[in-house]
Amino acid sequence: MSWADYLDANQPRFIEELCDFIRIPSVSAKPENAGDVRQAGQWVIDRLTAAGIENAQMYETAGHPVVCADWLHAGPDKPTILIYGHFDVQPAEPFDLWTTPPFEPTIREDRIYGRGATDDKGAMLVPILAAEALLAETGALPINVRFFFEGQEEIGSPDLQPFIEGNLDRLQADMIFSADGSQWDPETPQMVLALKGLVSLEVTVTGARSDLHSGMHGGGVANPGMALAHLLASMKSPDGTILVDGFYDDVVDLTEADRAAIARVPWDEAEYLAETGAPATHGEPGYTTRENLWARPTLEINGMTCGWQGAGTKTVLPSVASAKITCRLVANQNPEKVYDLIAAHVAQNCPPGVTAEVVRNPGRADPFLVPAGHNATAVAGQVLEEVYGKVPHQTRAGGSIPVMSTLLDQLGLHAVMFAFGHADENQHAPNEFFRLPTFRLGQTAYVRLMERLAG
Amino acid sequence: MSWADYLDANQPRFIEELCDFIRIPSVSAKPENAGDVRQAGQWVIDRLTAAGIENAQMYETAGHPVVCADWLHAGPDKPTILIYGHFDVQPAEPFDLWTTPPFEPTIREDRIYGRGATDDKGAMLVPILAAEALLAETGALPINVRFFFEGQEEIGSPDLQPFIEGNLDRLQADMIFSADGSQWDPETPQMVLALKGLVSLEVTVTGARSDLHSGMHGGGVANPGMALAHLLASMKSPDGTILVDGFYDDVVDLTEADRAAIARVPWDEAEYLAETGAPATHGEPGYTTRENLWARPTLEINGMTCGWQGAGTKTVLPSVASAKITCRLVANQNPEKVYDLIAAHVAQNCPPGVTAEVVRNPGRADPFLVPAGHNATAVAGQVLEEVYGKVPHQTRAGGSIPVMSTLLDQLGLHAVMFAFGHADENQHAPNEFFRLPTFRLGQTAYVRLMERLAG
Repeated sequence: MSWADYLDANQPRFIEELCDFIRIPSVSAKPENAGDVRQAGQWVIDRLTAAGIENAQMYETAGHPVVCADWLHAGPDKPTILIYGHFDVQPAEPFDLWTTPPFEPTIREDRIYGRGATDDKGAMLVPILAAEALLAETGALPINVRFFFEGQEEIGSPDLQPFIEGNLDRLQADMIFSADGSQWDPETPQMVLALKGLVSLEVTVTGARSDLHSGMHGGGVANPGMALAHLLASMKSPDGTILVDGFYDDVVDLTEADRAAIARVPWDEAEYLAETGAPATHGEPGYTTRENLWARPTLEINGMTCGWQGAGTKTVLPSVASAKITCRLVANQNPEKVYDLIAAHVAQNCPPGVTAEVVRNPGRADPFLVPAGHNATAVAGQVLEEVYGKVPHQTRAGGSIPVMSTLLDQLGLHAVMFAFGHADENQHAPNEFFRLPTFRLGQTAYVRLMERLAG
Repeated sequence: MSWADYLDANQPRFIEELCDFIRIPSVSAKPENAGDVRQAGQWVIDRLTAAGIENAQMYETAGHPVVCADWLHAGPDKPTILIYGHFDVQPAEPFDLWTTPPFEPTIREDRIYGRGATDDKGAMLVPILAAEALLAETGALPINVRFFFEGQEEIGSPDLQPFIEGNLDRLQADMIFSADGSQWDPETPQMVLALKGLVSLEVTVTGARSDLHSGMHGGGVANPGMALAHLLASMKSPDGTILVDGFYDDVVDLTEADRAAIARVPWDEAEYLAETGAPATHGEPGYTTRENLWARPTLEINGMTCGWQGAGTKTVLPSVASAKITCRLVANQNPEKVYDLIAAHVAQNCPPGVTAEVVRNPGRADPFLVPAGHNATAVAGQVLEEVYGKVPHQTRAGGSIPVMSTLLDQLGLHAVMFAFGHADENQHAPNEFFRLPTFRLGQTAYVRLMERLAG
């Protein structure tokens, strides 16, 4: 049997296994799910071992654990690659918007629905299955392969940097491929040349010592909800320009060539609005929507909390109001500097009658930009062209994979996105899904990548 | 035994009974506590009956029920008074700020702590106990008395108007006294001459159809949290001036005499800041803090909800953000007109890229202002002067008691606040309490009020 036949024959089992994987609610953001994240890591160890991959082992960090494994018997004249992915998932709230429960995977019309189906459980399983097929049918892999899976990507990989620094020998490779990412559409491949960086923070505005009667104290003390509204409004104009002093200073402006490359990739504004359900596009003036999505930094409110949120009326004058904010950064912004600029903005713009505090939340990433002549990117592009029969689009992504910049720092390697999800698969939202035909296609692509890298 | 001896002798029992009353979590704002509100009403019926008051009965409304009772045997030459109060309470959240649990009343240093201790369970029990003492010791009341207690004051008494309209014969009286209100301090009485009106609403801003990945879509579609911040900020300047067009149009300006009367009541800004724990006072420019608290309208955010509010970072671009707002109104503002002005403001100031919707929440009240020559107010003032040995301050209150304006409309009577809580007793906040000496003093005052009204 060829590896292709093996993959075809075993696809039903692989799908069952992916269902098992999704059933583990490995939500890294919620302390109460820490045990589930660990259980997902153990599931990955067992699955790697079952595939014939060696040394699968859990590594502790200050937070959620990491799993490493390898198969290094191809010989010293063959390259060694490191394959990256993550087994943690985003929170699934709001549950009531899911057609079927997020941790009870369901297959409908060649799609598997569930939290983590595409981001990243389905996608990270793909290279393991490709390796299993080669090992099962040929008894070997054509190159040396390391696997590196983490359990904290969705909270910004706060503990990965010390782990990588302390385990360089376990991660040493000639090239890195990320099984977290996506293809352009089910028919069209892409090479993702840039990712945005990330900084996460929370602004808390405090007025009185405790919640007060809004009738007895309204007009006497400031309302932290209103003060927070003024503070947030001061950070970004209604038209989408970020007003934090110095925020854009380090941004590398798009060249005419960059803008032309972006413009060559198809874009349908009406389709984007239909997909998101937004009444209009909205972003920084002077740039196309795609330029904003791909190559301009953002400042987004992720959540706000203040006072009474139950049913009906509670005539309370709240004591505290807070907002969670993340900024997505582009080359050459620095997360620490952007945080400092926002903290200074809050200090300088705090409305009267309240105090305002800023704290950093877990999660940081430097922006990531692949150099033009990068070899691993070129090889991956050839495999994608062969598998899809089309030249890949050259794209950028608004998302962040913090570990990519850490790997670059520590190993000197630009990782190549080689992953088979798609951007319309409700990542981080209700009704996340993964396409089963792409699940299969990705397995072929990883086998061919390994074969091509063997020379 | 005199009525005073009776009250003294039975005080321990009365306090036990108040504890039983507080233990019922009759939170009118929460649908899941509807049965508890009803149970509190039944408790009031039983307590009225035990006191010797007749015809205690529950009346249904479209929402929480009403309790009426009477003792009408003083004869037609004696006046009939209606005593008002409420047996529902505010929600007790945030629970973790309570020293002892809100529905497990605890006595510490002559104070009883618990949700509703002062607002209004302790205060509404006072006239029942005064009547019990007179009935027990003299076999009669000196005047005719009706009791009218409701279970929806804390949500703005939405169903009281139809109830009152349909039960005028049950409520007919010569004077109305409210057992909801407060005295100036434990040594000083007050006559409350004005209450603010109320209108309650919720603004909801919607962007995309569902929550999105903040990296994949940030810069592409508007953020409803940020749009809500801009919309709220447009309603009120950072200095405290309400910017909704036409909001102040119907406000009766304070005269120099009004401002002088307000200025005669002691005010200590440092003490107010110490009491509230706010870093500074904050209200409409051009008015003293007390003028703002008592006699200027307000627009306050009671709560805000948007996106991820759990621990840590969730990189979500929320689909929806909303804010609950109540305005406190002064003569001659109209709740419906103010709602319309705010709805128009939202429609005209909705930021780009989102839609905004405004709905009214339950609760309305017209502003309430007692005429200068009002007789019942004068009599109540005499009783207070006699009981406290001091001329009462003439004050206004920022709170709303919606039923007062409805009673004025339907019965033609300005109710007189005759209640014995104090503004520092954490109404609507954690660690609400009621002073036990005042609980006792109020009982004396109600007996003397009835005796004085008998002529």
